[in-house]
Amino acid sequence: MTSEEARTRLEALGFEDDDLTALVAHFEDAERREKAGHGFSRIAWLETLEIDAGARPMRVVAEEGFERWDGAGALGYLVLEEIVRATITSPPTRARVIVAERCFPSGVLGYWVRLLAEGGLVAVLTATSPRRLPHPQGGPPLTGTNPLAIAIPSSDGRPLVADVSMGAVTHGDVLAGRAQPQELVPFGGEQAHKAFALAAGLELLVGALAGEEHGAVLVVAKPAHDPAPAFRSLADGMRLPGDEPPA
Amino acid sequence: MTSEEARTRLEALGFEDDDLTALVAHFEDAERREKAGHGFSRIAWLETLEIDAGARPMRVVAEEGFERWDGAGALGYLVLEEIVRATITSPPTRARVIVAERCFPSGVLGYWVRLLAEGGLVAVLTATSPRRLPHPQGGPPLTGTNPLAIAIPSSDGRPLVADVSMGAVTHGDVLAGRAQPQELVPFGGEQAHKAFALAAGLELLVGALAGEEHGAVLVVAKPAHDPAPAFRSLADGMRLPGDEPPA
Repeated sequence: MTSEEARTRLEALGFEDDDLTALVAHFEDAERREKAGHGFSRIAWLETLEIDAGARPMRVVAEEGFERWDGAGALGYLVLEEIVRATITSPPTRARVIVAERCFPSGVLGYWVRLLAEGGLVAVLTATSPRRLPHPQGGPPLTGTNPLAIAIPSSDGRPLVADVSMGAVTHGDVLAGRAQPQELVPFGGEQAHKAFALAAGLELLVGALAGEEHGAVLVVAKPAHDPAPAFRSLADGMRLPGDEPPA
Repeated sequence: MTSEEARTRLEALGFEDDDLTALVAHFEDAERREKAGHGFSRIAWLETLEIDAGARPMRVVAEEGFERWDGAGALGYLVLEEIVRATITSPPTRARVIVAERCFPSGVLGYWVRLLAEGGLVAVLTATSPRRLPHPQGGPPLTGTNPLAIAIPSSDGRPLVADVSMGAVTHGDVLAGRAQPQELVPFGGEQAHKAFALAAGLELLVGALAGEEHGAVLVVAKPAHDPAPAFRSLADGMRLPGDEPPA
């Protein structure tokens, strides 16, 4: 699918103006970063949902160090887009915790934290999604794949962006037939209990702050130091998290 | 080593009163939770360091949503103990980001977040330590084992406490001969790039907020919901992160 076709199909769903641009930009970035399961292929899935393209996220608590948002029926992508824009426009003097209730789907979390880092903020973001990962001992799915994304601005213009799902494969891989359903378990093989513990901790973190429906928790802060260039130098040319895939 | 012997040896290092009690309690908890590398064995190591048992951490910024602490020469254990006590005494109305500069060693992070959860707060804590984990492709150590600990209070009195080091083994395991130095790599086997990405993200998160020396970053928040009991019910008796080891 081309960006042009993506745009046309999203327009047919009722999206327009900034929302349309934001959605296309997110999907294009997912394609470029080889996260195809979060890219244009999602549009066919969106076409199967009941979407209110006019719904707007609402900021229901706005304090210097804390915000609470309600997705209010808007697509999670657009909830995060709105939060990111609002945060870059009015950044905290030091730090802010931002809770997003009813925020699904959340897309590529690394995309949103990268925008924040490009806006000068350290950002940590997690989000819940349908339960798909079982306990390492088996049983029913207990947690979402619950990615954790961390972005750090850098004076060299190359932020570090870690974006790690706790699943060994993605749900998109399973849908596309690239992985078997039984492969969708916490990553780590013999040490899968570690990824499961992180997935469980993040599941309940979001649940405790955002409630039962899928949500997101974001922490942003003004950096006091600039550690990325020295870290990149120490890594001596090895590919670091968030670097573009090799050409 | 008995708790009594631990106490005597720590007293000989100059610790007294609350500090002594706090240190013994942390080491005892590490022993009970089978984290022996963080338990009484650390006392022999402390005896090799130059320790100023009278040093006190200082809170250098105190706002509703942000605090900055300086370890100021105090043992990291005692810096975190002081932060935890101060936070439970004066919790945020909604949320607070707390940065601890010069905070080493930080001990079992799960211990500190559990105290916060028992005090009614959701808590997320990470901390840096000497670089020991190389890039999955090899090369010099780039990051500490950089654990991430997450604790969620529960109305059933059993908080969930995830505490995950990004290393496949611990430095303590290597020191004790239970693991080879070359095994101290990011966990995850074929997917070690995931644990490495988390370790790198956490390394630079702490570096960007707390500076070059080892530090810690803590986020605490008042829970708005109580998801742990339902999660435990769904897990149907399986051991969850932070549960006591089977007898």
